[in-house]
Amino acid sequence: MSEQMTGAESLVRSLTASGVEVCFTNPGTSEMHMVAAIDKVEGLRPVLGLFEGVVTGAADGYARMTGKPACTLLHLGPGMANGIANLHNASRAHVPIVNIVGDHATFHAKLDAPLASDIAGYARPFSSWLKTATSAATLAQDGAAAVAAARTPPGGIATLIVPADCAWEEARDVAAPLPVPERSAVSETALSAVAEALRSARKPAILMTGEALTARGLAAAGRLAEAFNAKLYCDTFNTRIQRGAGRVLVHGLPYFGEMALEELSKVDKLILVETKAPVAFFAYPNKPSTFAPPDCEIVTLAAPGEDALGALEALADDLAPGVTAETMALALPDVPGGALNADSLGRIFAHFLPENAIVSDEGITAGMAAAIYCAFTRPHDWLQLTGGAIGDGLPMGAGAAVACPERKVVCLQGDGSAMYTVQALWTQAREALDVTTVILANGTYDVLKIEFDRVGVGAPGPKALSMTEIGAPDLNWVQLATGMGVQGFKATTAEEFAKVFAACMKEKGPHLIEAVIPGM
Amino acid sequence: MSEQMTGAESLVRSLTASGVEVCFTNPGTSEMHMVAAIDKVEGLRPVLGLFEGVVTGAADGYARMTGKPACTLLHLGPGMANGIANLHNASRAHVPIVNIVGDHATFHAKLDAPLASDIAGYARPFSSWLKTATSAATLAQDGAAAVAAARTPPGGIATLIVPADCAWEEARDVAAPLPVPERSAVSETALSAVAEALRSARKPAILMTGEALTARGLAAAGRLAEAFNAKLYCDTFNTRIQRGAGRVLVHGLPYFGEMALEELSKVDKLILVETKAPVAFFAYPNKPSTFAPPDCEIVTLAAPGEDALGALEALADDLAPGVTAETMALALPDVPGGALNADSLGRIFAHFLPENAIVSDEGITAGMAAAIYCAFTRPHDWLQLTGGAIGDGLPMGAGAAVACPERKVVCLQGDGSAMYTVQALWTQAREALDVTTVILANGTYDVLKIEFDRVGVGAPGPKALSMTEIGAPDLNWVQLATGMGVQGFKATTAEEFAKVFAACMKEKGPHLIEAVIPGM
Repeated sequence: MSEQMTGAESLVRSLTASGVEVCFTNPGTSEMHMVAAIDKVEGLRPVLGLFEGVVTGAADGYARMTGKPACTLLHLGPGMANGIANLHNASRAHVPIVNIVGDHATFHAKLDAPLASDIAGYARPFSSWLKTATSAATLAQDGAAAVAAARTPPGGIATLIVPADCAWEEARDVAAPLPVPERSAVSETALSAVAEALRSARKPAILMTGEALTARGLAAAGRLAEAFNAKLYCDTFNTRIQRGAGRVLVHGLPYFGEMALEELSKVDKLILVETKAPVAFFAYPNKPSTFAPPDCEIVTLAAPGEDALGALEALADDLAPGVTAETMALALPDVPGGALNADSLGRIFAHFLPENAIVSDEGITAGMAAAIYCAFTRPHDWLQLTGGAIGDGLPMGAGAAVACPERKVVCLQGDGSAMYTVQALWTQAREALDVTTVILANGTYDVLKIEFDRVGVGAPGPKALSMTEIGAPDLNWVQLATGMGVQGFKATTAEEFAKVFAACMKEKGPHLIEAVIPGM
Repeated sequence: MSEQMTGAESLVRSLTASGVEVCFTNPGTSEMHMVAAIDKVEGLRPVLGLFEGVVTGAADGYARMTGKPACTLLHLGPGMANGIANLHNASRAHVPIVNIVGDHATFHAKLDAPLASDIAGYARPFSSWLKTATSAATLAQDGAAAVAAARTPPGGIATLIVPADCAWEEARDVAAPLPVPERSAVSETALSAVAEALRSARKPAILMTGEALTARGLAAAGRLAEAFNAKLYCDTFNTRIQRGAGRVLVHGLPYFGEMALEELSKVDKLILVETKAPVAFFAYPNKPSTFAPPDCEIVTLAAPGEDALGALEALADDLAPGVTAETMALALPDVPGGALNADSLGRIFAHFLPENAIVSDEGITAGMAAAIYCAFTRPHDWLQLTGGAIGDGLPMGAGAAVACPERKVVCLQGDGSAMYTVQALWTQAREALDVTTVILANGTYDVLKIEFDRVGVGAPGPKALSMTEIGAPDLNWVQLATGMGVQGFKATTAEEFAKVFAACMKEKGPHLIEAVIPGM
């Protein structure tokens, strides 16, 4: 193609040529030529979020389920900054995202207009690739380079800052996709070291994240576990775990350090797959920050972005020929009646979760039981809060639903964290996404009460409680959902929750269930 | 005092000793010792926001009305990042804020736990003072220094990053307040240059922001305006303007460049007070980015942070002795009936706005009429979106209400921008703040439709419209408000709006009115 077009159009055509199909966005004036180009060009679907945290979290969820980048279109520094928390989560998830961030025209920048800011400064911490475009003529190549950078294993956040005049001036070219490197093979040295560690261990364990947590990766790891009596762990928070019946069970390392230390206390050889030696989520006075025993030998099989799948399968073929991995049998919990609490909710959740569902888990304390029970339910995908920045759950669910319109998405969502990006409900409604949001409505930041105790400052007084409780006034989730076009239900007993959750699992479209459970 | 205490307690005591009275916050685990210290120490009132954009926007509003800093307490990089947009607005407003941002313990930082990030990198663009604490023993001094830095004229954002171990280890000292520099006097040279410019001008104009927009500053400027037939302008977006009957009228420079150019086209001498020569909010193809005519002489009276009040009064005494400034007479618009639209709403708004009200104006396009009519109503304060990052209006209103509990606060708020930090409604309810929020519910980002046309890309197609309209589904503001504990009303006619707005102006406490008006 060499027709005259705007830089924006050349960028949009180059992004689509490189396989980008969805643009999550909340644009502003400096992005209007990009909006016009998306309007004109076939093949890039815009999805509006009413806040940028929704936009970036949705891009995270989309990438987790497709393995490929959506683009975002964001409005200068402050608009992008509104999306930083979920870009932080996405960068910790090692997923590909291409951010297109509008900026003032190059000739306007020196005037320091009110919205001017150091966009690159804000973007640097979360970006694995960062560029400010310098001309319309080179935008096409910039776009192709951004996609290739985002897709470079293990995946990362590529941020392209586009001054408005680069978008509106003339361009001639559309860039062809750039080659994306394959995952590099794990070295023979690493394979041998792991083989030796497994053979010599009294109590081996394999700690994994990334591609090892696909059904295929877990199947290979499961053969090694069987052959060497090794326990399989994954990080506390992972990008995506394929769980449920027919799959190999992997144990999440406990969030609470005391439990993690106990769990690993006897391990003498710890194999790492796309992760690092386990560290505490937070530090605490007089408690250790690392969890592996001092005399435990730690051996890395694959660094993030290396071919962990190939390495696990090669090891299993070498060391466990003919061994079959133990997989989970379907064992649905009974549906309890009576009080609705984290446990009864978890049983019901697992009982009715349909095959091939996607769970976006930001359940924090109140979601832990559901996570455990779901190990025994129908096969499904489980997405977690990789970077610890709350407010990813609802947007991630929306993005996953855009990626997989034929699958049921369920958000298992704490009430406190849900409020961070509550605007995601509107995008669910706008796009008629098949998402059921379960709000674990306990009216408190329970985790903070636990942490208040764990950091050793005694019992919270009234002012501390006012900073850890979100009742007074209580949030009415049915009204919040309905106010954004999502049908809402409230459940206060196990029977009520079972009835409405079962119904939502059968009916397509966005629904929200306010599950009223006790807090601490 | 030299009792043993934690670093956090020494910091909180030092902040209160330096005059900090309110802490807007959403804390996390790494801030628990700060929470415990706030719990223990008298004199620092915690105000919880359910999202950090609320926290920082409220600190902005509080500072605009008190002239002194609140502190925020924020959770590591992502928590602070959620508040960047409103810190950008606050930095453009030159208001004082002290951010306390928790971080991992110093010994934990190297482990790169999931929530670790480059906090200083994220904070640098908006901070006028930035420090990472290095010990519990020095936190007290850090706190005093942060307050002094924030208060240094014209006011700025001081960000203190507090590793968790600095907060929990022992400290002995409370820091005394540090001296804060006075605003520096305007030089005789500048005063003479301005005097000469005024005397020699055919068509002089004075463009102001900052302290010049107080009633006192405007009174002095008004005497000069009278003596020299000068027109008084303020920036398009200002920190705070004292407006209404009995005050000197100041004309906001139009947002749209065509209008600003026309407005200034005949001006031959432009005096700047705490601002710079006017520039376009955005650049557009083939349109100028600066508004002063090429042959206009531009003379600066006061740079930001200089003693603009003193300079204006000195000039008025020298150059306009005995001259009286023209002030606005009270001229309440009639209360119209019939269709509710931006104009009829604006008349009703001005008619019923009570004396001494504070208006947080994020009305964008639909609020412009109200702003004009209010020039003729009872005296009031008007707060604007200084940095152009939408989502400041509701939080700013909450912060202003915390600052001035005896005054009526009214948020004049576009629906699209309201959704950015809609969680502010909950804080209004939690704190029983006397805020009436008027949602200008036109269901579109109208400004984007105007800008789509102004950037010259033709008529928007369906995909472009999907990125500029926020109906489908319509937001139900009464449900959103009620869901967060704020009483909500809906008005679809001028009569309905007049009735409910008048009632809200008389009744204390948080209310929201969804004013349904036509969009483009």
